[in-house]
Amino acid sequence: MAAMERHFDEELAELKKKLLHMGSETRKMIDLAMKGLEEQDESKAKTVFSIEDKVNGLHIEIDEIAMRLMALHQPMATDLRLLAAVIKINGEIERIADLAVNMCESTHFVLAESQPKSFKDLTVMAGIAERMVCESLKSFNNKDVAAAQWVLDEDDKVDDLKGKIFRELLTYMSSDPGAIDRAISLILISRNLERIGDHATNIAEDVIYMVQGRDVRHKTLEMEKHKYKDVKSE
Amino acid sequence: MAAMERHFDEELAELKKKLLHMGSETRKMIDLAMKGLEEQDESKAKTVFSIEDKVNGLHIEIDEIAMRLMALHQPMATDLRLLAAVIKINGEIERIADLAVNMCESTHFVLAESQPKSFKDLTVMAGIAERMVCESLKSFNNKDVAAAQWVLDEDDKVDDLKGKIFRELLTYMSSDPGAIDRAISLILISRNLERIGDHATNIAEDVIYMVQGRDVRHKTLEMEKHKYKDVKSE
Repeated sequence: MAAMERHFDEELAELKKKLLHMGSETRKMIDLAMKGLEEQDESKAKTVFSIEDKVNGLHIEIDEIAMRLMALHQPMATDLRLLAAVIKINGEIERIADLAVNMCESTHFVLAESQPKSFKDLTVMAGIAERMVCESLKSFNNKDVAAAQWVLDEDDKVDDLKGKIFRELLTYMSSDPGAIDRAISLILISRNLERIGDHATNIAEDVIYMVQGRDVRHKTLEMEKHKYKDVKSE
Repeated sequence: MAAMERHFDEELAELKKKLLHMGSETRKMIDLAMKGLEEQDESKAKTVFSIEDKVNGLHIEIDEIAMRLMALHQPMATDLRLLAAVIKINGEIERIADLAVNMCESTHFVLAESQPKSFKDLTVMAGIAERMVCESLKSFNNKDVAAAQWVLDEDDKVDDLKGKIFRELLTYMSSDPGAIDRAISLILISRNLERIGDHATNIAEDVIYMVQGRDVRHKTLEMEKHKYKDVKSE
């Protein structure tokens, strides 16, 4: 193996490591955002914001390294698909971090209201969304199509929970208009979690494409087309 | 100029054309989704769904062509940045199309309710969001950093309108709990429009990076960090 190639392989391994580190920092953000809500502890938000700074720095750095590796080494087939996947997944993780920040902002307004309430369904939903992020990143690291497929299948559960939470909060608002502010903040948090699940799904699709060169996007969509989804689950 | 290079330039021009075509189809979807709401005409949704099929096909096709061009021609610097921008912008446009579909789904539930109401602010918001998409794509086509910067500046207007619409609908819900379903559907539509504006902003940032090799992402974020945004504008 030529010295240049070995160098390239090392840089690629380093890049993957950076991406996975960015992913685990982002998972911490989701976890802290939920703890802030469950434990009614706003100080968690500060930690989330400071981790976001790191994640934003990594986002730019990873993009630059991937572009530089493409330009300098002009990789073929497998390595090229890997670098393209890194660029896409990098974008997905950065958006997940944004959504964790949004969750903290909504939490502020949930906690500002006096009524305490359990967040059981939200906690379950957050657990599934976070696991999806975790498994999607593992599937990238291990080039594991089965794990990526698991993530795709899991997305329905998140959507179902979002619908359930929405219906409950709608009833809550209808019976107590004074609780509308608070209920809407909780709905926004559930939508942030749903979008985190969507980004994990995107990562899983990128992994399948990277491994198989086969595009699984838009496959399920076609089956669902032309029937309205219940807005209650929207 | 060698024959292979000429061929590459032609393929690149063809790819750009395809991406811009996908963009203009997606703008049609936003336009039709809003018309469906304003004219209370649900048949518009069907057209939106059928355009989405085309857009999804283009999304996969553009990704494949960009990857093939990278692999076969191993472009340097400028062309590589262009191809990376195509891959990213392709993802943004596909998400905008998804959001137009979401708008139609919410519209269904707005129109199911009996009370008619004007959608003036939503119409203004949609106009700005669509113009942002249009200008971001033009800035890509013309490598026009000033146009891209215009898009970044415009995003505040969309956020302000989203806040205004939210506050109005909150008052509306509080005074008439029977209107909660409908009001929430309208809030969801305004959030879809906001996210369309965000994707246009992402495209504009990709263009600036493509042209200048300078990363403008996360610059404004840092100034806004550590102060809570009003959830009323969330």
